[in-house]
Amino acid sequence: MMTAVLGATGYAGYELVRLLLRHRMLKTPLLLSREGEGASAGLDELYPALRGDQPLPLQPFSWALLEKRKVKILFLATPHELSRDVAPEAVERGIRVVDLSGAWRLKDPVNRAVYGFTDKDAAAAARWDKDAVYGLPELHRDEIPKAKLLANPGCYATSVILGLAPLAKAGLIDRRAGVVCDCKSGVSGAGKKPSAKTHFVEVAGNFSAYSVFGHRHTGEILEQTGLRGPELTFTPHLLPIPRGILSTLYARLAKKAAPEQIEKLYRDAYSGGGCVRLFGHGALPQIQYSLYTNYCDIGFQLSPDGKRLTVVTCLDNLMKGAAGQAVQNMNLMCGWEEKEALS
Amino acid sequence: MMTAVLGATGYAGYELVRLLLRHRMLKTPLLLSREGEGASAGLDELYPALRGDQPLPLQPFSWALLEKRKVKILFLATPHELSRDVAPEAVERGIRVVDLSGAWRLKDPVNRAVYGFTDKDAAAAARWDKDAVYGLPELHRDEIPKAKLLANPGCYATSVILGLAPLAKAGLIDRRAGVVCDCKSGVSGAGKKPSAKTHFVEVAGNFSAYSVFGHRHTGEILEQTGLRGPELTFTPHLLPIPRGILSTLYARLAKKAAPEQIEKLYRDAYSGGGCVRLFGHGALPQIQYSLYTNYCDIGFQLSPDGKRLTVVTCLDNLMKGAAGQAVQNMNLMCGWEEKEALS
Amino acid sequence: MMTAVLGATGYAGYELVRLLLRHRMLKTPLLLSREGEGASAGLDELYPALRGDQPLPLQPFSWALLEKRKVKILFLATPHELSRDVAPEAVERGIRVVDLSGAWRLKDPVNRAVYGFTDKDAAAAARWDKDAVYGLPELHRDEIPKAKLLANPGCYATSVILGLAPLAKAGLIDRRAGVVCDCKSGVSGAGKKPSAKTHFVEVAGNFSAYSVFGHRHTGEILEQTGLRGPELTFTPHLLPIPRGILSTLYARLAKKAAPEQIEKLYRDAYSGGGCVRLFGHGALPQIQYSLYTNYCDIGFQLSPDGKRLTVVTCLDNLMKGAAGQAVQNMNLMCGWEEKEALS
Amino acid sequence: MMTAVLGATGYAGYELVRLLLRHRMLKTPLLLSREGEGASAGLDELYPALRGDQPLPLQPFSWALLEKRKVKILFLATPHELSRDVAPEAVERGIRVVDLSGAWRLKDPVNRAVYGFTDKDAAAAARWDKDAVYGLPELHRDEIPKAKLLANPGCYATSVILGLAPLAKAGLIDRRAGVVCDCKSGVSGAGKKPSAKTHFVEVAGNFSAYSVFGHRHTGEILEQTGLRGPELTFTPHLLPIPRGILSTLYARLAKKAAPEQIEKLYRDAYSGGGCVRLFGHGALPQIQYSLYTNYCDIGFQLSPDGKRLTVVTCLDNLMKGAAGQAVQNMNLMCGWEEKEALS
Repeated sequence: MMTAVLGATGYAGYELVRLLLRHRMLKTPLLLSREGEGASAGLDELYPALRGDQPLPLQPFSWALLEKRKVKILFLATPHELSRDVAPEAVERGIRVVDLSGAWRLKDPVNRAVYGFTDKDAAAAARWDKDAVYGLPELHRDEIPKAKLLANPGCYATSVILGLAPLAKAGLIDRRAGVVCDCKSGVSGAGKKPSAKTHFVEVAGNFSAYSVFGHRHTGEILEQTGLRGPELTFTPHLLPIPRGILSTLYARLAKKAAPEQIEKLYRDAYSGGGCVRLFGHGALPQIQYSLYTNYCDIGFQLSPDGKRLTVVTCLDNLMKGAAGQAVQNMNLMCGWEEKEALS
Repeated sequence: MMTAVLGATGYAGYELVRLLLRHRMLKTPLLLSREGEGASAGLDELYPALRGDQPLPLQPFSWALLEKRKVKILFLATPHELSRDVAPEAVERGIRVVDLSGAWRLKDPVNRAVYGFTDKDAAAAARWDKDAVYGLPELHRDEIPKAKLLANPGCYATSVILGLAPLAKAGLIDRRAGVVCDCKSGVSGAGKKPSAKTHFVEVAGNFSAYSVFGHRHTGEILEQTGLRGPELTFTPHLLPIPRGILSTLYARLAKKAAPEQIEKLYRDAYSGGGCVRLFGHGALPQIQYSLYTNYCDIGFQLSPDGKRLTVVTCLDNLMKGAAGQAVQNMNLMCGWEEKEALS
Repeated sequence: MMTAVLGATGYAGYELVRLLLRHRMLKTPLLLSREGEGASAGLDELYPALRGDQPLPLQPFSWALLEKRKVKILFLATPHELSRDVAPEAVERGIRVVDLSGAWRLKDPVNRAVYGFTDKDAAAAARWDKDAVYGLPELHRDEIPKAKLLANPGCYATSVILGLAPLAKAGLIDRRAGVVCDCKSGVSGAGKKPSAKTHFVEVAGNFSAYSVFGHRHTGEILEQTGLRGPELTFTPHLLPIPRGILSTLYARLAKKAAPEQIEKLYRDAYSGGGCVRLFGHGALPQIQYSLYTNYCDIGFQLSPDGKRLTVVTCLDNLMKGAAGQAVQNMNLMCGWEEKEALS
Repeated sequence: MMTAVLGATGYAGYELVRLLLRHRMLKTPLLLSREGEGASAGLDELYPALRGDQPLPLQPFSWALLEKRKVKILFLATPHELSRDVAPEAVERGIRVVDLSGAWRLKDPVNRAVYGFTDKDAAAAARWDKDAVYGLPELHRDEIPKAKLLANPGCYATSVILGLAPLAKAGLIDRRAGVVCDCKSGVSGAGKKPSAKTHFVEVAGNFSAYSVFGHRHTGEILEQTGLRGPELTFTPHLLPIPRGILSTLYARLAKKAAPEQIEKLYRDAYSGGGCVRLFGHGALPQIQYSLYTNYCDIGFQLSPDGKRLTVVTCLDNLMKGAAGQAVQNMNLMCGWEEKEALS
């Protein structure tokens, strides 16, 4: 089958290409460069780690090319404004879209306002805001196979939602006390574009919080967990490592619980497939365990009095947090083995 | 004046020696090795960074030597069991003690149980449990000058207490919702002894939580802030950096607040001297700003609805979190300029 | 086919297991623990990154077990003394051995003296010192398929030999001036055992040379390149990264050369298969390009006067420098595709 | 005394300001911003680590301001083109200049060509190319006190020259075999401006060579050691650390030597003051020992046959490699204690 990647030169796009190249159901994907990116160099020149058996040319994007090469799935690893623009037309042309940006993840216009979209075609946008499927396979296993426009979740959002959703659904959280999500991410999450914030000297040996009370992934977490705004406090931090996310999630429980209850809750939630690995009570995951895998690892510890729960989740922000999850979604959309190319 | 350091070969001890060497009121300190440490090598052989003008021999500890050299202040950078043993005798012999371990920090025997002391001289211990001064200058400025046995605070504890104390004292915290302290520390906090947990390959590129609901500094935080056990959730994490602590502190407010109120609260609390630097609302400190300084930096952000407060504090765990604070305490004990040797 | 790994708990052993698990010709390998290692825990408990579909129990080593499970190839990721002891008996029992230690790499007893072997069975040792095959596929493609005892090359040695061998063979090196090999390795090369040298705080932000004029890989380099002792200066350094080696190799040329000549020399040397990637003149490899691959990347730059050559080689010390190369060797020994499980 | 710093916002400029602030002979220095830098923010806003007792405003550069504030020494931490332009006028106005760029370091026009200067005032440039003093105190102790325009050496150059000069002067180097200088630097040496090369994700876990046979510091090394071009091979590499340089220097000796000879050679060369620390034979310095000091540490190892010498030098590229050395030079220019503000 033929796929195409628009935006292959960023970190998520590059990771995606690596995965697609080893997927047994796929031909070598079409790599498309955005306008002004300089299409002459191959991806293996930008990322010499890819040097090997075959050349990986970047070609200028055009609908004609997509049609000619019979592309069935178009991956968008592009800024959200561009995804917002390209996705509806692709779907109209019969090409299914897996979008890695935040363009189509939110159902509630209030939450979506943070992206400041000024849609060229308001009607198309409105339709797809409604029909786009939020591609978290562990929560939406039934909708994904039919998706035409799949919104791949945010990296932070994935790590938080997978940790909180079973608790929220079970009504275990004391909502009056609220939930605290203290999240830490490696630098690749900030993208490939050089800036003062990603300069080695500013990051190495350092650690900092950012976007306090203002990160864009907040809306996804609210919509997927059913929490209301004031019940969720979410703080991202920048870790001096290239990749990986660890989220420490804090909840007071509506009623006292035993470790076995919590374990059962998670086991029941994630036993039907997907890419979650459960660690037992007191056995916490670390970022290193999940790197280069598509797993979201979840562990937890209950306070001695059974009333407070601390959950730790880990994932690789470029894998389960982006490209790996995109491939997992494609596998489900196409009826293939869920972990093909992912283990 | 003459000082001595027992346990100079660990990270905190080494840092302390560096500070004492540039202190204008002090002679070169006496460096004492613990039994079995091999007293032959000088500290500058173990830490070649110290190579320079003068030799820094390590000498075996003995009371006779302390007396002969007229030591006025003895710094203990030793395991808490040893501090527990040595401190009372030193004070009895007229030598003031600044203890960097956790041996004498706790007043409540329930909290102290975590250390599992089996005091050889129960009477001496009982007396000093009562009389030892908790050496956080920003909170106990009046008691420190008179202290005979000064208990230097823990690194995590300092970063949390300085962030929370003004809020707790003002009754601003919604205690039913509780406080979450998500703390992250560099590896030097784990000590100099090699272990699987401090192996470079296990730490670099990694991040992990540990001692969830079970860290020894919990008692200090409770006693100094007045919070009760179930109101405090404190989670330490290991950062892949050599030094520095960042604590993210989360509180729901008993009543809605404005940024100016919070700013004023902190300003009033820390305007009387000490080593706190206040950052404005929304201007958060980062670990790199506080490294190699004796400052605890504090910034905060209030949620848009004014009901949730996120405080970020940063310090250098070997400076304000250990050796620097010990020197600050000594300066106050001796009536010297508070920041001598610290800037 | 059935394989076994003795010493699976070290870094190279672990990496080897990861590769064997995804090899399409192999069953799940037998994981053998050395005496006293505590055989109860599974490898996935020691390395939670391996958690997944199947348990990976560690079993105590015994010849009976190897026989019962019909092991055809035994990988030794053990200290050289143990390899020296185990390998001859294995081969005698009809099990082919791939040894990742330095036990069988050296032909010249003078070079071998550095390991200080006191062979229990001198006759067996003497025989295998002669018959063991040095497993560098790019140099010994013809001998490897027949090998019964294969000595997997050292990590530094691989990075140096692959860079120098074509030059030495072509007589291009001015031997009177000698060759300088300035090599830098990540910390996993120092092994998993915690020590002062691998403590995070000692390594992070630091860089150092070690074993100057005294590293054990020197003998391998001499034997495989034909250089004589005084013609080779080899200095290892410790990089503050978990994995990867970069070697900068300096030669004065016996006669002036053009870039095209050097390029052709390398191309001819490595066009017959193997895992070398050639970068053009002036296009130098970096460690990041080779990480998690089995490639040794080689680039070079000629001085403007054409008389001095600087060669840069990069590889992943756990892949092409250890486990990956071991699998490459096994593939050749069994007549399989050379890169199976390696890309 | 009054000093001024032009270019205080870069890494070297910032480090310089830190040193000047604690210098006992100096008033708070005047901080001057280059055109277009935005002079409104204070240096303590750009570098919050500087927050403390006094504000540190950046003011627009003007000769009138320098005159009004009676500036005696102007430090230039600016690009070499700007230094080339500003320095002659400053000296003419009676202000002594310490220039941290490469503008005035080279005497030989062939070497200087690499900078591509197109001097506005050729006569002034020619005069100062001749009269500028190369500020390596350990080599030019007598000239520095009289200097009007002092050219502060390059960081790599300092680490190489201090290691080689005594050997070259003693005629110990076999020049036909040449000298290899394999140098490794932390990222702050690449400057504060964000670029793909300094992006955290590209540097962390990586290591690479650059500017092979083409680095600008080559000319300084040649002029100060007396080596001729083809005798010197100098390769810089980028270390994944914020600061520090380690240079491994390789020489074949003109005649066999004993360790004591080499030790004596270095001792004699550096016993007359300066900031070199000698490590004994076989006792090699590491980058961590020299960080935040103004020392260049030197150690060496002789091959067993006494014919090859490997020298390792370490320094902090922002201290002895830039700002620290600038202060050391100022101290000598003003007749103050050489290490004032440096220990």
